[in-house]
Amino acid sequence: MKNAGIISIGNELLSGQVVNTNSTYISQFLKRYGISVNFIITVGDDKSSIIQAIDACRIHADLIYITGGLGPTHDDITKTIIAEYFNSKLVFHEDILDDIRDMFRRRGKEMSDSNISQAMIPDKAEIIHNPVGTAQGMKFKQEDKTFYVMPGVPFEMERIMTDSISKDMEQLSETRINTLTIHTTGMPESELYSKIEDWISDQKQIGISILPHFTHVDLVLYSDVPDSFSILSVAKRELNEKLGEIVYGYDDETLEMAVANILIEKKMTIAVSESCTGGLITDRLTNVSGSSAYFMMGVVTYSNESKVQILNVDPVTLKRHGAVSPETAKEMALGVRKLSGCDVGLSSTGIAGPFGGSNEKPVGLVHVGLSMNNYLESFEFRFLRDRIMNKQLFSQMALNQLRLTLFRRSI
Amino acid sequence: MKNAGIISIGNELLSGQVVNTNSTYISQFLKRYGISVNFIITVGDDKSSIIQAIDACRIHADLIYITGGLGPTHDDITKTIIAEYFNSKLVFHEDILDDIRDMFRRRGKEMSDSNISQAMIPDKAEIIHNPVGTAQGMKFKQEDKTFYVMPGVPFEMERIMTDSISKDMEQLSETRINTLTIHTTGMPESELYSKIEDWISDQKQIGISILPHFTHVDLVLYSDVPDSFSILSVAKRELNEKLGEIVYGYDDETLEMAVANILIEKKMTIAVSESCTGGLITDRLTNVSGSSAYFMMGVVTYSNESKVQILNVDPVTLKRHGAVSPETAKEMALGVRKLSGCDVGLSSTGIAGPFGGSNEKPVGLVHVGLSMNNYLESFEFRFLRDRIMNKQLFSQMALNQLRLTLFRRSI
Repeated sequence: MKNAGIISIGNELLSGQVVNTNSTYISQFLKRYGISVNFIITVGDDKSSIIQAIDACRIHADLIYITGGLGPTHDDITKTIIAEYFNSKLVFHEDILDDIRDMFRRRGKEMSDSNISQAMIPDKAEIIHNPVGTAQGMKFKQEDKTFYVMPGVPFEMERIMTDSISKDMEQLSETRINTLTIHTTGMPESELYSKIEDWISDQKQIGISILPHFTHVDLVLYSDVPDSFSILSVAKRELNEKLGEIVYGYDDETLEMAVANILIEKKMTIAVSESCTGGLITDRLTNVSGSSAYFMMGVVTYSNESKVQILNVDPVTLKRHGAVSPETAKEMALGVRKLSGCDVGLSSTGIAGPFGGSNEKPVGLVHVGLSMNNYLESFEFRFLRDRIMNKQLFSQMALNQLRLTLFRRSI
Repeated sequence: MKNAGIISIGNELLSGQVVNTNSTYISQFLKRYGISVNFIITVGDDKSSIIQAIDACRIHADLIYITGGLGPTHDDITKTIIAEYFNSKLVFHEDILDDIRDMFRRRGKEMSDSNISQAMIPDKAEIIHNPVGTAQGMKFKQEDKTFYVMPGVPFEMERIMTDSISKDMEQLSETRINTLTIHTTGMPESELYSKIEDWISDQKQIGISILPHFTHVDLVLYSDVPDSFSILSVAKRELNEKLGEIVYGYDDETLEMAVANILIEKKMTIAVSESCTGGLITDRLTNVSGSSAYFMMGVVTYSNESKVQILNVDPVTLKRHGAVSPETAKEMALGVRKLSGCDVGLSSTGIAGPFGGSNEKPVGLVHVGLSMNNYLESFEFRFLRDRIMNKQLFSQMALNQLRLTLFRRSI
């Protein structure tokens, strides 16, 4: 099986200005072809570092994927260094410049002269066409090693991988590693591990990783034995039995997709009223393609006045219990359900922080309200994170509570 | 000046299941102390790879930051390998186990036995207390090299860095590198570069990076000369003159913060009505702490009925021009402004995709509506990305159009 190495080039990656999502994409991409990445080396726009990284990769990998530093500006030096590394001259390609000029024209823009350098390509490179940008991809072969050089702009790199490099990968692919990711939410990593520790040590043909995220914990199972597909199916069933309702989805399935599937299956529609989550719950619900089938309306009632005016929350409730209270959460959920005529009303009210907390109602407190037919309930959760993370956690709890309630009740 | 290297350990990073944000955080953290990261090596939970990475780091860096693989589960092997690497024995610490037990108790949970291994620490390590998790940080010194070993859970690693490792860094810090990031939106990288190419080549004491993101382009300036602060101030003024209104903020300032600052300065309130962006505009506006001072209400009117019912959009407009039209965008903006009694009404209606497009109204089309006093206008933008990216771009255009209009008009 071929081994891969990734070299990510860019000062912005070392200074922490940009998160290296390109290497993540490339890893995921290669996994589909049974090619595993052994290491990722990130270096700056610096000649000796780039050369050291390529030298290291030659030793430990057969396939080397290099991204970054191919742009038209002064700090893009990768192409010159790579050309030198492979004893190659830069040659001007008229047709590439025409393509670039065309690309600007279609966007209604003039091409600036800085793009002329983008049409200079090392003569020993096989050009890999970039349909969405000015920096061409390049392929170099040396002995039994193959080097792919791509721009660092994620969108452009991804198109070059899917349009062109995928063809090379298909030919190389031997073993397919099958993987299955099981997503859970609502149980800490160590407790989850205790529940399945014995099961894990019994497994002979499956590798298992436990990945804690701040809103959820993933279990990743992988296997490369010939009948791995059916072995993973059995594992999935066994783990589902052990873990129960904390499992919300598999592989690319998000919590909002899991909620969507239940709503569609039950032919129910939903409306949402948010305070502290500020629109994040509806944003997540509408990230699902086709969400207009069940999601009708959301309101973000940030001020007390809007809670009364739009959602018909009782001013006495607000005065007696406060905006952050089980009572207000319930009235908000009921209010948006009545306003919209939907089957389900979901609400959030809490304190995301960093200000506005008290001893009794600290930052990180949220009440989630849920209204369906004659059912009206509220749920309390507490967290200790920053504003953005608290909003994420609040929205996670709201969507998960909705999932659990719909799942448990046969409405 | 000390050089740093980062080793990120975890199969999940090589398989693409998790994005390596830890190395980004550490890089940003060290930059404040004038310590620059030379390289980042990412390897799997694999003994020989981990040892090779540490060996490589010893050669090229003085400070080595290692994260990942310290959890309580079977795939966490870093501690054992590190102990062996430093000829160190694992020793049980009663007080650490007590701390861990306490931590579970405060969260209202029982500690599972798998946590006992978390109280085993290599005897040559200096323990770095982890106040928010079970995996302790560790520090090893060998010759003039220092190794920091931390858990891979971002929240825990960050607390160990800020609470403890920061003290070491303060002592090491010699030169302070000053940096300034200038955020722009609405102009492609190559066009922006053409505007400032001559200016860049004139700079002797400032380094400049151009970082294209899919919603915006950043300019990063850095300098380590003694009066770098005033030099960067001059550069900031000069670039502002050259780039004009495409500059929306500096350093940690987001577009939504820039909008917030203008609204606060002008003492204006805002309400938002969204269709295709599904709550993302209000989510972004409420990510700003203190947003309740100017943000009153948001509505996500996904269905045509809710546009009519809540926002008083004319059914004839919907029928004649469609939901995705300049006319509907304007009526939505006006509607939410009237409903809320706010000074500004902002709206979005478009097609995020992947379905629902036509030749006339393709996926990626959005109309942004803006209503203020007697002003009522709509703005059209087109993109070619996927659903999630289109939503991001749509929200960026809406917030930026709001910023530009408020900036240009003296209302």
